[in-house]
Amino acid sequence: MNQVLDLVGIFVFALSGALVGVRKRLDVVGMAVLAEMTALGGGILRDLILNVRPAAFSSTGYVLVPIAATVIVFFWHPHVQRVMPAVDVLDAAGLGLFCAVGTEKAMNFGLSPLHGALLGVTTAVGGGILRDILAGQIPNLLYDRQLYAVPAMLGSAVMAALYTVDLHGWPATLAAAVLAFGLRIAAMRLRLRAPLARGVTSE
Amino acid sequence: MNQVLDLVGIFVFALSGALVGVRKRLDVVGMAVLAEMTALGGGILRDLILNVRPAAFSSTGYVLVPIAATVIVFFWHPHVQRVMPAVDVLDAAGLGLFCAVGTEKAMNFGLSPLHGALLGVTTAVGGGILRDILAGQIPNLLYDRQLYAVPAMLGSAVMAALYTVDLHGWPATLAAAVLAFGLRIAAMRLRLRAPLARGVTSE
Amino acid sequence: MNQVLDLVGIFVFALSGALVGVRKRLDVVGMAVLAEMTALGGGILRDLILNVRPAAFSSTGYVLVPIAATVIVFFWHPHVQRVMPAVDVLDAAGLGLFCAVGTEKAMNFGLSPLHGALLGVTTAVGGGILRDILAGQIPNLLYDRQLYAVPAMLGSAVMAALYTVDLHGWPATLAAAVLAFGLRIAAMRLRLRAPLARGVTSE
Repeated sequence: MNQVLDLVGIFVFALSGALVGVRKRLDVVGMAVLAEMTALGGGILRDLILNVRPAAFSSTGYVLVPIAATVIVFFWHPHVQRVMPAVDVLDAAGLGLFCAVGTEKAMNFGLSPLHGALLGVTTAVGGGILRDILAGQIPNLLYDRQLYAVPAMLGSAVMAALYTVDLHGWPATLAAAVLAFGLRIAAMRLRLRAPLARGVTSE
Repeated sequence: MNQVLDLVGIFVFALSGALVGVRKRLDVVGMAVLAEMTALGGGILRDLILNVRPAAFSSTGYVLVPIAATVIVFFWHPHVQRVMPAVDVLDAAGLGLFCAVGTEKAMNFGLSPLHGALLGVTTAVGGGILRDILAGQIPNLLYDRQLYAVPAMLGSAVMAALYTVDLHGWPATLAAAVLAFGLRIAAMRLRLRAPLARGVTSE
Repeated sequence: MNQVLDLVGIFVFALSGALVGVRKRLDVVGMAVLAEMTALGGGILRDLILNVRPAAFSSTGYVLVPIAATVIVFFWHPHVQRVMPAVDVLDAAGLGLFCAVGTEKAMNFGLSPLHGALLGVTTAVGGGILRDILAGQIPNLLYDRQLYAVPAMLGSAVMAALYTVDLHGWPATLAAAVLAFGLRIAAMRLRLRAPLARGVTSE
């Protein structure tokens, strides 16, 4: 179950990576690199910091699913663009799932709730940041004023809190993931915006 | 003592990260990411290479001090800009401290003096490099011709030399840090410049 | 023998890094950073993922050879530019060698053939990607449509296949390296190009 959810999250993140590749007119190699890094980058960063071998390097599905996403985007990217609202919803699901799973794994390895939540957020947003750096643009997350990291922070914080009162396993993970997902969807619907520093305008 | 110095270095590096965020019109999330990465990035790179869990992920202060720096810059960045000369002096202190501490930690983990010094420099300048990559600009260090890495190299080399003759502990660390600090200040005052390749002009 | 080949590969990759530094008008520090990262970055990424201390931090030659390359480019870059076709051939040799050695090391550490080959490719192309990110440009590999990663993939795949039938040691490594080298040279000569996503033109 967890495995299937994971692969769905990876697939959606890989789609977003491959689509950025199309927008930047990268070749098929560039599309595949962006798809793999967007999908797996956050988890790889998490595992490097936890000092364990990255999960991406022992799972076959993790490596092949982004290739499948690349093939789909390669041939049918106009269609994928057309269903972007659906992709955005799935992306929110991936965000929620990755922050909850990342926080739980970090705390399994003995990190404090604060550091566990921080690493959960890293898991959720790290792939997108690497995608944007590779594509030669400032990471979206840093300036687009959408609430993207904030739902992941709240989801991670709830996961960390549940863990400290000994609630873990998949119901707790799912609860934290659904919370982050819901907040992300709400932020999109309500067009909530992160503030700029005092006196700064966005031009 | 060491702990306090460390937190001062982290605070100053975080200020510089958050200020770059303001200059690039990033939102508050982007400012916080830049503050954290500038302050902690060098040490995280060092610890990943030493194959130990990054210190940033077991210390509460390391995570919270950059948040405090972000809040200060968020509300009072014009004031912080006005005291930039003082911030530059503190940044030089952070540079000196991080290169000395980084070299010592690397040699504690059994690296040779050459590699220890290399990792010390990485500790000192890694955060600023990550800051600039995230902010979408070529790292300052690579082109601004200021002597920034060079004082760190000399401080790290002295630390490595002292360590090989069995002088470590805080007096040695402090001596190396003060040397790098002094060289950095001197380089700023005297406007010393790193050379360009033969025949290249800076336009 | 292996050691000598390794150092040749590192030297050539470092030349390419330092030359990008000249083209971007970086100072000597920037040139040295690019030389080191281009030459050592792929292997460092590989070793971080394998969760071992990076080879670059226990070998003296690995650190000093890029410095030598920086000095050469600093004083004689017009001459180096003039012999670029020869440098490109050596770069292809480095590519072949690094993908084969990387795959073998990964499988020595117990990775599956799929993941071993993936890490071999990472070893071969990771340094160039880091070079371009540091130099503020989209990695060449992602958009230039040259077949650069593809020969490394095929060389890595052959190395992984040989390893699974228990053929390793230097003759197998050399065979895989020569194959990737030959494919890379052929791709350059025949101007083979990686495709863009359907309907995308390169302007």
